[in-house]
Amino acid sequence: MSHENCLFCKIAAGEVPSTKVHEDDEFLAFKDIRPAAATHILVIPRRHIDTLSNCDESDAPLLGRMMVLVARLADKLGCAYTGGETGFRTVINTGPGGGQEVYHLHAHLLAGPRPWQRMG
Amino acid sequence: MSHENCLFCKIAAGEVPSTKVHEDDEFLAFKDIRPAAATHILVIPRRHIDTLSNCDESDAPLLGRMMVLVARLADKLGCAYTGGETGFRTVINTGPGGGQEVYHLHAHLLAGPRPWQRMG
Repeated sequence: MSHENCLFCKIAAGEVPSTKVHEDDEFLAFKDIRPAAATHILVIPRRHIDTLSNCDESDAPLLGRMMVLVARLADKLGCAYTGGETGFRTVINTGPGGGQEVYHLHAHLLAGPRPWQRMG
Repeated sequence: MSHENCLFCKIAAGEVPSTKVHEDDEFLAFKDIRPAAATHILVIPRRHIDTLSNCDESDAPLLGRMMVLVARLADKLGCAYTGGETGFRTVINTGPGGGQEVYHLHAHLLAGPRPWQRMG
């Protein structure tokens, strides 16, 4: 279900442009327009969910597939951990107290030289 | 499977003490001994997995249940997003480049007045 005024629903629908790095039937991944790190990707479900606090057990399969996708994208982008000094950070912000800015569930994938900019 | 020299496997087995906030057959949650925020909980699967980069589709159900547990614990701890100014941040660090310090998969649950201390 798309929420009429949701920026990320519009991005998922192609109504607002984004620099996509992945898309499939269930998820979309695109570059954050205000990157906090050299690599800063947002991974979103196409289905509108406000926040992680809105998720219950019925959403667990989707959340799990989203986290595996983050790991796959890190690999694709050359920042997966393969035993060396590489790696990445996965962040989900929930609510104002967590620094969430867009109320459509999304995971940040951050990588590159640290320190990174603070998010929120 | 427990890894002999893994700190978090030892915590899960009760061989190293921790301040637990939750435990069930699959997961354990306990306070970070070096908190980066007023609320700083670590959620781990009992099963040893080195990093998120080691996860594939077969791990998606576990990862999803872990994320739902993080949301449930945020609710229990009074920091779930319920429409006001509350909220929390969920972080999974992967590899040295992501700031991972213990190589047993874990999600950080962070909440409280910001800015929080940087992690890694």
